[in-house]
This record gives sequence, C-alpha cells and structure tokens, in this order.
Amino acid sequence: MCELLGMSANVPTDICFSFAGLLERGGNTGPHRDGWGITFYEGKGCRTFKDSKPSCESTVANLVRDYPIKSCAVISHIRQANRGRVCLENTHPFSRELWGKNFTYAHNGQLSGYTSQLKTKRFSPVGNTDSELAFCWILDQVSQRYPEKPKNMLVVFNYIAKLADQLRQFGVFNMLMSDGEHLIAYCSNHLSWITRRAPFGEARLADTDWIIDFKKETTPNDIVTVIATKPLTTNEAWETMQPGEFKVFKLGEVVSGKKIDK
Amino acid sequence: MCELLGMSANVPTDICFSFAGLLERGGNTGPHRDGWGITFYEGKGCRTFKDSKPSCESTVANLVRDYPIKSCAVISHIRQANRGRVCLENTHPFSRELWGKNFTYAHNGQLSGYTSQLKTKRFSPVGNTDSELAFCWILDQVSQRYPEKPKNMLVVFNYIAKLADQLRQFGVFNMLMSDGEHLIAYCSNHLSWITRRAPFGEARLADTDWIIDFKKETTPNDIVTVIATKPLTTNEAWETMQPGEFKVFKLGEVVSGKKIDK
Repeated sequence: MCELLGMSANVPTDICFSFAGLLERGGNTGPHRDGWGITFYEGKGCRTFKDSKPSCESTVANLVRDYPIKSCAVISHIRQANRGRVCLENTHPFSRELWGKNFTYAHNGQLSGYTSQLKTKRFSPVGNTDSELAFCWILDQVSQRYPEKPKNMLVVFNYIAKLADQLRQFGVFNMLMSDGEHLIAYCSNHLSWITRRAPFGEARLADTDWIIDFKKETTPNDIVTVIATKPLTTNEAWETMQPGEFKVFKLGEVVSGKKIDK
Repeated sequence: MCELLGMSANVPTDICFSFAGLLERGGNTGPHRDGWGITFYEGKGCRTFKDSKPSCESTVANLVRDYPIKSCAVISHIRQANRGRVCLENTHPFSRELWGKNFTYAHNGQLSGYTSQLKTKRFSPVGNTDSELAFCWILDQVSQRYPEKPKNMLVVFNYIAKLADQLRQFGVFNMLMSDGEHLIAYCSNHLSWITRRAPFGEARLADTDWIIDFKKETTPNDIVTVIATKPLTTNEAWETMQPGEFKVFKLGEVVSGKKIDK
C-alpha cells in the first residue's frame, strides 16, 4: 500500500512541515520504501519531483523538505509497491494534459480483476501499475463525456467521483486528483483531512520531532486544508472520511462532495 | 531566444558537466534569465526539474548540477522570454504522453504569423508560448497520421522533421525532442553536437572554470553525444548543424537524419 498527502490553500503555502512527516513513513516510521513523488501547482503550471528511491534516503526529497515551494494545490505520494515493479515510470503522482489543463493524480490501494473492464484509448499508461491505468481510464471517460472543458469544473469532479465509485468495485481506491484549482479526495477506506484557519495554533508531527506554531507562519486570512492517509499530527482534530465519501476542495475550502452518514 | 542542451548515451550517464556550463548562461555568461528546465529519462519514466527563476540563482538547478542523475536521454533548456510571460507553465521542456510513451520537447527560436495555421485538438497548450503550441501541433499531426505506434519509431521522427520544416517557415525553429529512446535535433540556425567515445580526453567548459578528464569518468565502450545551441567546451571539435538539417540519435549514435551540403 502507499500513503497520500494533498493540500489546498487560498494563498501560496509551502508544505515542508507535512511533507517532513510523510517522508519519515517512506522507510523510517513506515514501510513505503518504493519511491515517492510530489507535484506543486504554480499558476497554470506544475512541477513534479519524484524518485524511485525511498523518500527517507532521497537527496531530491530532502530538497523538497528544506526548500519552501509555495503552492495552492499539492499532491504527494509515497509508494509501497504491490502491482508494478519499483521504477520511475511506476512512481506517483501521474500527470496528463486535458483541455489545456494539467491533471495530476495519486492512488492508494490495490485493484484486481479490472483488466477487461478498464480499456483506454486517448490516454495510455506508461508504466504497468493498476493506479496509472485507472487514472488514464478516468481521463478517457471524462474526455469522452466532455470533449470540451465544461464551464463549471465541479460537474467534472462530481463525475470523477462516480467513476471512482466504479473503480472501488475492483478493490481499494483512495485517490487524490487536482487540476491546479480544485483538489478532489476520494475515500475507499483511509483518508483524513484538516482545515487550518485563524485562530492558528501549534501542531506536532506524529512521525518526527517537529512542532510548528502556525500563528508565526500565517496571516489571519489564510485557509489551508491538508489531506493524508493517516493524520500527520498528534494534537489536532482531523476529520476521518468514510468509504465512498469524496470532497472537492478549492482555495482550502470544501466546495462539493458527498457526505456519508457515520 | 533560449539555449538548448540534449544528450543521448549508450549507458546511463550524468550530465552535470554540460549542465554546469549551460547554467552559467542563465544569467551569468548569458542573458537567459527567464526560467530553465531539464528532463531525465530513466527507463520508460522521466522526470523534469524546472523553475521560472534564473538557472544561475536556482536552488533546484544547483541540485541538478551537483547530484548526478544518470540517464540515456536528456533534454534541457534555459529561457529568455519572447512570446509568453515568465512563469512555470511557459518553462521548457514540455511533455505529453502519446501511445503510452513520454514525449519531451524544447524549442529555441521565435515563430510569427502561425495562429491561423497551427490548430490543435487532442493536445492543447497549458501556457501561451509559440513553443508549446508548436509541440502540441506536432503531436496532433503525428497522432492523426499514426493512431497506433508504428513499429519503427524512425518513421515518426522523420515525419516530425518534415513538420519542423513547415514550422521553420514561421521563423526560427531549433528543436530537441525525445521519446526516451531517440533524441531528434532539428536545426534552424544554431545547433552543434559532439560524440565522445574512446579514446576519451579532457574537456574544458567555455562558461565556467571546470575541466573534466572523461577517461576517469567513462568505460571504453561508452558513447555519449551532447547537443547544444553553442558548443559548451573550448578544446573539442563540435559539429555545426546547417539550417534544415536534422539528426536522430539513439544510444549516442546517429541513426537517421538529413545531411545538408555545406
């Protein structure tokens, strides 16, 4: 299995603190040694740092942890391989362009018995993971249904959640996807999130010895949501998502989603 | 204008030496301050490091210069903006997936009067440069002519050279493109290349104080071709390409191309 990390914010925000916690799970406090990656959106552009080495030993991961890149939408992933060998082409996040927008995606879970169902045409996987195939299939379905970009992107993300419901029939499908403005989190079994806003307080990482005082790092108008497979901090109240639940975030706030009765 | 750098090699080789020379032209010995990028292929996967900051001041560029990533195909670019503002989405190299392969591209030059001619459908630019539009147009044409991947990729690269001939009618079009196995270099006015093989010797960078002894860095079977807008070393004989000439390299060797009588 793997671990996911995502961020949606209303001001360009760095993710060094959360990423430092995730990194530790890539070989130190967690077994996810089979590569890692992170995509930062900056304007309409995005850049992905990735490595097939364990994140806890990666020079590139250390750069990302120590060099604050500010972004309003981030997706990150550390991998424990199940389907597909350890190599760069099997390392998340995956990206494709549709309608002149960069779509980025990462998946946690494992799918089975999907081969005859998930046919792709316009978008094809480069590697051989179930994850990248599922991403290509989603974008194929979206581009068939919406040959042109709809004005309201929420209809697209709501449709993506329906496609995720179908994928969940093949196994575990926790997923983050972004177009740079929106971030969708789809929960199959493990996904938690927290929105930080004024009054800000202290946060303590679960996986490494780092306490941050967000009062010193933020302005009163900042709204920052962080989504992770498991809560990254020990002293804050994270929301636990339910199976089949999804949320679409924009500028740090929930703008759409399906609430599941607990 | 901009500067291009490419590499094709028969063994995974780092490009630190050549990249160090290019970096200097990104604000020190050259005026190309408007961003930089580099794509490394590793197996079928690739990863791109890019920044809209000048390469000579970029923390990420310093990592790439100092941390040897070994690859058989590399494309790099430093930008001096003409069309399209300075931002991440306008920073080369650009990448798109076709037939489950990652295609990467960078352009040096400027095109004019192309707007009504270069219509794209399947691939759309994210930013607003002439360069990315030309890349999307090339891939659109290729995917229309070859809906499935041809067995012999050389027919694709020869077709891409013909498309480049058409683009050259709109201005200056020096271009590097790779699918990870092949690297095509198309010359409009400035492009030089050198193939290094045994017996290896010393090389001295033109733009910074670095002399390397390739005998100490290589094995006798290594073949490494480097392509650049202008020769990067002062003590080696680089081949100067002619307008309209192209070469396709694979594993460091020329495998196809059009020779122009000098």
